[in-house]
Amino acid sequence: MTTETASINLLTADALLQNWQGHRRLTRKTIEAFPEEKLFQFSIGGMRSFGEMACEMLGMTVPMVEGLSTGKWAKFESGKPATKSELLHQWDAQTEQLNEKFPQIPPHSFSEMQKAFGQWEMPGLAGIQYAIDNEIHHRGEGYVYLRALGVEPPPFWDRY
Amino acid sequence: MTTETASINLLTADALLQNWQGHRRLTRKTIEAFPEEKLFQFSIGGMRSFGEMACEMLGMTVPMVEGLSTGKWAKFESGKPATKSELLHQWDAQTEQLNEKFPQIPPHSFSEMQKAFGQWEMPGLAGIQYAIDNEIHHRGEGYVYLRALGVEPPPFWDRY
Repeated sequence: MTTETASINLLTADALLQNWQGHRRLTRKTIEAFPEEKLFQFSIGGMRSFGEMACEMLGMTVPMVEGLSTGKWAKFESGKPATKSELLHQWDAQTEQLNEKFPQIPPHSFSEMQKAFGQWEMPGLAGIQYAIDNEIHHRGEGYVYLRALGVEPPPFWDRY
Repeated sequence: MTTETASINLLTADALLQNWQGHRRLTRKTIEAFPEEKLFQFSIGGMRSFGEMACEMLGMTVPMVEGLSTGKWAKFESGKPATKSELLHQWDAQTEQLNEKFPQIPPHSFSEMQKAFGQWEMPGLAGIQYAIDNEIHHRGEGYVYLRALGVEPPPFWDRY
C-alpha cells in the first residue's frame, strides 16, 4: 500500500451511519415483503424464521451504539416482537434512536478495544461493521425464504 | 454529528482490503462446503446456484479493482468456472491479484464518481462496498442452500 493511499480517510462516521440506515431501509422492505403468517413461522433446513433473525438485528443495532457511546454494556438480548406490525414499529423506533445516539459515540470508541455486550472483544468500528454484515447476511437468507414462498424480494440495490 | 466524531478517519484502505479478504476467506469455505454435484445444480425458488453466484463475485472483485486503478472499465462479465476445483482455483488467483492491485488504486478514485463497468455510477469506495455487500448477501443465500442440503455452513464470524 502506498503511504498516500493507505492514509486517506475513506469513511467518515456520518457516511457509516448513512450506509447502515440504507441497509436498514432495505431490511425493512424485506420484513414487509413477508406474508404475516410466514414471518415468524417459515424456515428452511431447521434455521430460524426471518422474524427471529430481525429480532436479533434489533438486539444488535441500538444496543451496540448505546454500548459504544456510554461504555456500559448490557448482556446481549434479541428484540421481543412477535408480530410483523410490532417488529416494524420497533424497527422504526430504532431508526430514530440510531440517528440520535450514533453521533454520541466518542471518537476513541471506534478504534479502542471494546468488550461488546460483555463478551465480544473487538474495536468499536469492527462491532458496528459486524452488526451491519450480520444484517446483510441474514437478509440474504430471508431472500431465499421469500423466493421459496413465491414472493419477489426487494431489489438488493434499493436502499432508499 | 459532532465535528470531532464526524471527521475522524474510521477506515484506511489497508483495513478495507483486509476486511474484504476476510469475507473472501469465509466465502471460500462456503464454496468448499458444497457437495461437488450440488454447487452448480442446486437452488431454491428458481434462484441461481451458489456456483453461479460465486462466478458473479469473481466478475466483481478483481475487475472492480482493475477499473478503479486504471480508470478503464470492461463490460461486466461473470467468471466462467463450471466446476468446484476451477472455481476455487480462480478464487485463489484473485486473492493474490487483489493484494497486488488494490494498493494501485489512486487515492482520488475512492471518492470520485466512477462509471463502474461502463454502467453503474458511484464513487469508487461505494463500488467496492457494493461488491463486498453483494458477496455477503449471496453467501447468506448459500447458507440456506447448505442447510437445505443438510450441510453445516462455516461459522459467520470465521474470517481466517
